[in-house]
Amino acid sequence: MLAGDLYAFQDLLSADEAAVVRRVRDFLDAEVVPIANDHWQRAEFPHHLIKRYADLDIAGRSSSSLLNGWLALEMARADASMATFYGVHAGLAMGSIRMCGSADQQARWLPEMAAFDKVGAFALTEPTGGSDVAAGLRTTARREGDEWVLDGSKRWIGNATFADLVVVWARDVADDQVKGFVVRGDAPGFAATKIENKIALRTVQNADITLTGVRVPEADRLQNANSFKDTAKVLRQTRSGVAWEAVGVMLAAYEIALNYAKEREQFGRPIAKFQLVQDLLVRMLGNVTGSLGLCVRLAQLQDEGKYRDEHSALAKAYCTTRMREVAGWARELLAGNGIVLDYDIGRFVADAEALYSYEGTREINTLIVGRAVTGESAFV
Amino acid sequence: MLAGDLYAFQDLLSADEAAVVRRVRDFLDAEVVPIANDHWQRAEFPHHLIKRYADLDIAGRSSSSLLNGWLALEMARADASMATFYGVHAGLAMGSIRMCGSADQQARWLPEMAAFDKVGAFALTEPTGGSDVAAGLRTTARREGDEWVLDGSKRWIGNATFADLVVVWARDVADDQVKGFVVRGDAPGFAATKIENKIALRTVQNADITLTGVRVPEADRLQNANSFKDTAKVLRQTRSGVAWEAVGVMLAAYEIALNYAKEREQFGRPIAKFQLVQDLLVRMLGNVTGSLGLCVRLAQLQDEGKYRDEHSALAKAYCTTRMREVAGWARELLAGNGIVLDYDIGRFVADAEALYSYEGTREINTLIVGRAVTGESAFV
Amino acid sequence: MLAGDLYAFQDLLSADEAAVVRRVRDFLDAEVVPIANDHWQRAEFPHHLIKRYADLDIAGRSSSSLLNGWLALEMARADASMATFYGVHAGLAMGSIRMCGSADQQARWLPEMAAFDKVGAFALTEPTGGSDVAAGLRTTARREGDEWVLDGSKRWIGNATFADLVVVWARDVADDQVKGFVVRGDAPGFAATKIENKIALRTVQNADITLTGVRVPEADRLQNANSFKDTAKVLRQTRSGVAWEAVGVMLAAYEIALNYAKEREQFGRPIAKFQLVQDLLVRMLGNVTGSLGLCVRLAQLQDEGKYRDEHSALAKAYCTTRMREVAGWARELLAGNGIVLDYDIGRFVADAEALYSYEGTREINTLIVGRAVTGESAFV
Amino acid sequence: MLAGDLYAFQDLLSADEAAVVRRVRDFLDAEVVPIANDHWQRAEFPHHLIKRYADLDIAGRSSSSLLNGWLALEMARADASMATFYGVHAGLAMGSIRMCGSADQQARWLPEMAAFDKVGAFALTEPTGGSDVAAGLRTTARREGDEWVLDGSKRWIGNATFADLVVVWARDVADDQVKGFVVRGDAPGFAATKIENKIALRTVQNADITLTGVRVPEADRLQNANSFKDTAKVLRQTRSGVAWEAVGVMLAAYEIALNYAKEREQFGRPIAKFQLVQDLLVRMLGNVTGSLGLCVRLAQLQDEGKYRDEHSALAKAYCTTRMREVAGWARELLAGNGIVLDYDIGRFVADAEALYSYEGTREINTLIVGRAVTGESAFV
Repeated sequence: MLAGDLYAFQDLLSADEAAVVRRVRDFLDAEVVPIANDHWQRAEFPHHLIKRYADLDIAGRSSSSLLNGWLALEMARADASMATFYGVHAGLAMGSIRMCGSADQQARWLPEMAAFDKVGAFALTEPTGGSDVAAGLRTTARREGDEWVLDGSKRWIGNATFADLVVVWARDVADDQVKGFVVRGDAPGFAATKIENKIALRTVQNADITLTGVRVPEADRLQNANSFKDTAKVLRQTRSGVAWEAVGVMLAAYEIALNYAKEREQFGRPIAKFQLVQDLLVRMLGNVTGSLGLCVRLAQLQDEGKYRDEHSALAKAYCTTRMREVAGWARELLAGNGIVLDYDIGRFVADAEALYSYEGTREINTLIVGRAVTGESAFV
Repeated sequence: MLAGDLYAFQDLLSADEAAVVRRVRDFLDAEVVPIANDHWQRAEFPHHLIKRYADLDIAGRSSSSLLNGWLALEMARADASMATFYGVHAGLAMGSIRMCGSADQQARWLPEMAAFDKVGAFALTEPTGGSDVAAGLRTTARREGDEWVLDGSKRWIGNATFADLVVVWARDVADDQVKGFVVRGDAPGFAATKIENKIALRTVQNADITLTGVRVPEADRLQNANSFKDTAKVLRQTRSGVAWEAVGVMLAAYEIALNYAKEREQFGRPIAKFQLVQDLLVRMLGNVTGSLGLCVRLAQLQDEGKYRDEHSALAKAYCTTRMREVAGWARELLAGNGIVLDYDIGRFVADAEALYSYEGTREINTLIVGRAVTGESAFV
Repeated sequence: MLAGDLYAFQDLLSADEAAVVRRVRDFLDAEVVPIANDHWQRAEFPHHLIKRYADLDIAGRSSSSLLNGWLALEMARADASMATFYGVHAGLAMGSIRMCGSADQQARWLPEMAAFDKVGAFALTEPTGGSDVAAGLRTTARREGDEWVLDGSKRWIGNATFADLVVVWARDVADDQVKGFVVRGDAPGFAATKIENKIALRTVQNADITLTGVRVPEADRLQNANSFKDTAKVLRQTRSGVAWEAVGVMLAAYEIALNYAKEREQFGRPIAKFQLVQDLLVRMLGNVTGSLGLCVRLAQLQDEGKYRDEHSALAKAYCTTRMREVAGWARELLAGNGIVLDYDIGRFVADAEALYSYEGTREINTLIVGRAVTGESAFV
Repeated sequence: MLAGDLYAFQDLLSADEAAVVRRVRDFLDAEVVPIANDHWQRAEFPHHLIKRYADLDIAGRSSSSLLNGWLALEMARADASMATFYGVHAGLAMGSIRMCGSADQQARWLPEMAAFDKVGAFALTEPTGGSDVAAGLRTTARREGDEWVLDGSKRWIGNATFADLVVVWARDVADDQVKGFVVRGDAPGFAATKIENKIALRTVQNADITLTGVRVPEADRLQNANSFKDTAKVLRQTRSGVAWEAVGVMLAAYEIALNYAKEREQFGRPIAKFQLVQDLLVRMLGNVTGSLGLCVRLAQLQDEGKYRDEHSALAKAYCTTRMREVAGWARELLAGNGIVLDYDIGRFVADAEALYSYEGTREINTLIVGRAVTGESAFV
């Protein structure tokens, strides 16, 4: 049981699910945690690990939202960058194909993606449209016979510097609808430039993408993505994944802080004995426990098919807000040692900022929930 | 479904449980809500309702922690004062007898208490010992043959001005252990003086109690309460009840705020259309949802017998902290109208302060959790 | 020096100003503090004190913003209700006449108001327009020869149940501009109904006012109030007064908490010795000190004529937000004793809610500042 | 006037002081800001700038606390790392010599330090004693004739990799008192190892120091540092400098956020037009303004000689707490662009963490203030 799982939420997993979680956790502890700071510092991706993720045999394997959520949690607890790598591939890219691809397309791409023979990316956000992703989408798709021609630019696209398959969202100039295209990473006219100078999720390879007359066969257009509503369905799924990742970051931060508090001595005793230190730890635990309870219920709604946009938006906004507090308290507890990577917490504090903003800012998720519960749109 | 139950936690109740909840909610809406402000304002207890609570046939009836928790939620959503009246009677007083009484004692008292023929109270807190309730307990019990003689004073004792049976905790001068006694409200030497000038839970009749040579037969000493550890078991149960009550207050505050936001117009539109108003509403919803998720898991731990002091302490501290925020945001949303009782929110804001402090302050509950997770006691 | 004035801001007053402050503080300690809880509880105004305020000889006497601010602080530290009574009379009502009245009008009304022979009120807010006070103002003024006829309703009008002179703001049906009228409290067609069931500032007599064909001579129309901009100038002055009052409430709350912490014992020592208690006290002190620093600079800007709407709006929003935190922490520190009026903190906690919302909510003041600094209006 | 200086605090400077501020600001804008991100990223110190700081002719020049504070503000607004470099040299190192050195020592060292011919460092913190700096200090000094022999280790010592003069604090084994020694950076037995992998203030060169039989002549022992009380006097001065630096960081964060909000468009309009964005900006402004007001009063107390430990401790704790909020809100406003250095805010967010913890954590400063105001020590 994880130190921060005071209410033993993990016991809600079935025996089979728990076995998968244990296997993944062992892998993460053995192979990801030890290299996480180093790659983060150098902003380089550990390509040698891709095959090891394949060996886990988990991508796209389970339809249990609880298991999938918990795996996102475990991955983020080890390293939010690698959790993001996995989430982009297995959640956003494979999810787009599963939810918006025809049976043929699913059969063509999902198996090799599940085996990580092809790594996926997901290109929706644009330089000028972060929050206003629907109406503001400017990348165009123009049909020419059996082909489409894509033009435009994208920003922040994770995995894109090395991805084999990039799900690109573009506006069909004919009917003005947003449609999805699976673009090969080596397609002529497709260029991905790594975004440098990041202070968070540095191991993730985000790219600025330009699409200049990229030609995509109609067979590679996602056949069931007919408007932005279909894109939104994908986001609804992955936003809950970010909520679980936020819990993973909180659990990591709590463990680091708890262990430090028990070992670090000041005034002749472990600092865990000071009221002000216990105050920080217990505030963290409250946030973890409430967020876990929320995420578990969210998974139930997903599996029961009762899951709506406002559910995932609330989860994303709430859990990442609580995560930011927790990461801050943990770093505060480590004082000076909290600002060197060696004590781990620094990485989580920095990465928390990216999770807080990606897949919908707090503001946008607030307005999604607000519209649902009041019946009034307040976006503009 | 309640407006604030965005994740449909209520669906976790069984059909039978849901029926009980509906019945209780109907009663509360019909008979408690309409009189709540008036009695609160006058600081008078609605004695005519006691028989109606009996008719509900719920006190001590169910062993489902989820149902019992949800009922506490519903009661607090209607009126935190009446929820407290019920919690003192059915939770603290009946709970003490159930957990610490012999089979004979249970058979003697519980049925007539379940029928509200006898109303219970629970006298633990003393004027000088609020947080330091164990070591600081000064009321004494001295055995004389088949009787005990009780001397001392108690403070904040709910229901005590009219209770028939008061569970009094006192220190046995012989072995220095804290023991429990069921004292009749009309016992010679027992005096209860109503605490006046309250600004919260005004409908609850709290009393200062003095015990001057009160004689209690050995048969009325709780036979299985041998030390403060047994008292603590009772508190562990009831603290989770306060967490549920806090959720009820949040749900009430959210509903009041949501309805007001949809109806109140400013600048030619309902204020629900303003981003700053949606921000408040969505913050409330996050707190409600996280707290509900926490409470539901807590109920599972209770039913599985895995429930420890730190679980209830965390729930009490976390949910009441979140509640205080929610009540404040709701009042803020109502602006000036939030300070007249007629709009209801004022009562919940005031009552939230009492819930925040009773059954263990945030500080004490923090130190209970902190000791459990760090292994270090920081009380002094 | 006040206990919470850790940085000795009071030393910034001149010797003469300090003498006035001392005189007023002595009066408040001797005559207002002792009766504050009782009148608050009964929601009755201490009419016998009006003459005593006159004896202080301070209303409209000084042009030093620092002194006037500090006096508001002292009054709120004693009792926020009485500070509000004084602020409505000397700030809003006398201020309107001073800023918008002709020399004749000033000479006619100000002396008898300074002597409290006539008590003033200020009627701007309407039932349907709290935040949208300018465009939403519906009370009408129609000129008929040398007279005006006023029709409409007002809400929340402090002092209005017994005021002699009520400054009423109404929209001239001829030119659609908002103008100001001094209406006598006994004018035919003028009716003020006390607002009951308040949970805050209960000693303040707020009224719902109806104006039904009230006739006002042109000579009683404020000659220099030609549009809402002139009304706004009055509000700009008084909003800073509320910021000072918020500091007064913080100082009172801090003192109550500090004294309690030093006297209350738990676990065999004063609770002031616990880290969690010192944490609360020092958070309070930080808020007090930052807010005082802000208010002092604001007073300088006022006296230098550099004072703009966004200055007072920021002060009002910031100081009342900090005050709400401080009042909450103080009440938390008193635990159960914090919910009985006898320990004083309960009154300040309740009153803080009213100060937080009146003279512009946090939301409206935020949008006033936001417009000034961004150049973009976000009201609708 | 700086964008965030809404209350024009800068006008409190005299004309001469304002000229100095302008000169320094021009230098910072021209020479520090353009290189700040690059050096931060590479964790390298811009040695070429040392001479330029000398040209400013400000180190140790003014006795005006307001001017000195404002200069710290300006430096931090440009780059918190370079502000720290300057603060260590001119505040901690030169300050130690000025406050604890004999007239001879001052004459010997201060002029060449003012000219930056010798750069200073300050070695107090040790690996095992961060907060418990007094009693926990383990570095020893043993007198041998006219020399002292120093042994021990220090941690986090800024500038130490290249400093010429390091003020080392060590415990005299003879009388157990903490004394100060000026150690040359090239002294035999003195070794400084750069601390790598920092996530904050990366441009600052912090070192782990070991002292192995380092010999220091009695003439280089600070003659007026006889116990830790003298060390504490130095800290009292520099802690207020950190408060000013925190204001500088807030001002930078606010400007970055404001400019971004005015330029970034979403939904067809600058995001500055959205209520949720104005909310963030105005919260920032409130924190800036309150903190500035506090710092200005602190400077007055310093100049009047009324300055006590609790004054600087409160300033440090309060302003850095508010700074952390402001930096977080600013980064939130920039969403994804907030996590690349190019938009500047990322650096300030990271650096804020270091300022929050150095020169006394929030916890330690809280306990310093708490002891002063309650008369009770709660350190252990």
